[in-house]
Amino acid sequence: MPRYKLTLEYDGTDIKGWQRQDDVPTGQGYLEQAIEDFCGERLTVQCAGRTDAGVHATGQVVHVDLAKDWDPFRVQEALNFYLRERPLAVLQSEQVGEDFHARFSAKGRRYTYRIINRRPPPVLDAQRVWHVVLPLDVAAMQDAAACLLGTHDFTTFRASECQGKSPIKTLDELRVERISDEVIHVHATSRSFLHHQVRNMVGSLSLVGLGKWNREDLERARDAKDRKAGGPTAPPQGLYFTQVIY
Amino acid sequence: MPRYKLTLEYDGTDIKGWQRQDDVPTGQGYLEQAIEDFCGERLTVQCAGRTDAGVHATGQVVHVDLAKDWDPFRVQEALNFYLRERPLAVLQSEQVGEDFHARFSAKGRRYTYRIINRRPPPVLDAQRVWHVVLPLDVAAMQDAAACLLGTHDFTTFRASECQGKSPIKTLDELRVERISDEVIHVHATSRSFLHHQVRNMVGSLSLVGLGKWNREDLERARDAKDRKAGGPTAPPQGLYFTQVIY
Repeated sequence: MPRYKLTLEYDGTDIKGWQRQDDVPTGQGYLEQAIEDFCGERLTVQCAGRTDAGVHATGQVVHVDLAKDWDPFRVQEALNFYLRERPLAVLQSEQVGEDFHARFSAKGRRYTYRIINRRPPPVLDAQRVWHVVLPLDVAAMQDAAACLLGTHDFTTFRASECQGKSPIKTLDELRVERISDEVIHVHATSRSFLHHQVRNMVGSLSLVGLGKWNREDLERARDAKDRKAGGPTAPPQGLYFTQVIY
Repeated sequence: MPRYKLTLEYDGTDIKGWQRQDDVPTGQGYLEQAIEDFCGERLTVQCAGRTDAGVHATGQVVHVDLAKDWDPFRVQEALNFYLRERPLAVLQSEQVGEDFHARFSAKGRRYTYRIINRRPPPVLDAQRVWHVVLPLDVAAMQDAAACLLGTHDFTTFRASECQGKSPIKTLDELRVERISDEVIHVHATSRSFLHHQVRNMVGSLSLVGLGKWNREDLERARDAKDRKAGGPTAPPQGLYFTQVIY
């Protein structure tokens, strides 16, 4: 059975996260329904990483095995037709070998967290950014972020419900970028992340940006290996799953 | 009575344009309601330029005379509080002299038109861009755009219902900018624009970008002084009223 790798964009606002649940809108549920509408098969797709309710994606990857040998472009076009009323689209479709697995073949995952840093509330980007009212010091955030790079026990930045086997992760990128007077992006890359890890790291970095913490405070929080020592969890609507590296 | 200049951001998706109409949501209606909620006065605001349903703003300007001498920041904060459920926010508030008029003092108006140029439908920016599926040649669009710069009779790019006195306008900027692989912006600046002028110019430029027209075709369309000689009207959701120059 030919295997298809699909790259997806979705708006997390009106879905209850990626993972299929009965009777609620989810990214997986919408995609599997579109596949059934397209070829009549009731299949389960495998994703590179689950996302929570409210979290967006511009580069989520899934794979699925179809019974028939379709042209990949035709698969993309057909799925986008059946998804036309849904907040989900297929950006790329390709046939891959049976050894490809969206989750297990992934060598890295990249997220971008978007902050709007200004007094007035965001209107055009209301469900697309985290609105931080008080001024953030990007240079201080960037400097402090460096202490999270490399291999650490990230328990401080791990959701209590996280099912990962080990809290030890290797963070390859944590970069705080000023995009404009009002917009700040935080980019994070790792082979894999703990549940809420990016949002918890961004929440702690925001304390540095606000001047409530310095770099040493962030190091101490990291070394405490205790979620209660960490900063707040940044809200989901600022988070984008942007890339899976294979 | 002190006069206040307010700079506004709004999402045009769920309002029926700027101008107040009975029993439908409009930018003006929401703002005037917020002013009444704030200070109890039922006032009419004057804007720099009306926008159509679906058109967004990041720099619309209005003025209004309040009975009391409020601190401008307090006016901004209070209005944003009363607008918190609305797709409209006050970005800036300042007290200005009585000789300031949002519309008549304006020396220039700037719009940006956003195009997403790719096969898959936009999801995150669904009501924020014009989706053009076939590839656009930005260099050809930029080259052709030059023939609309300066003073011309813009009847070809004027909506039939336009109430402007004269179709003669001076276009100071018409710049086609590639933002990324998929995103193209068109910037237009003029002292004032005819109704639908930006959307009609962008629609004609899209024909150049698609290779259906060349620069000479655009010149001929311009010189025909006939709306029927022009290209299609680009849809409202790609248009942003970004700046008023005083």
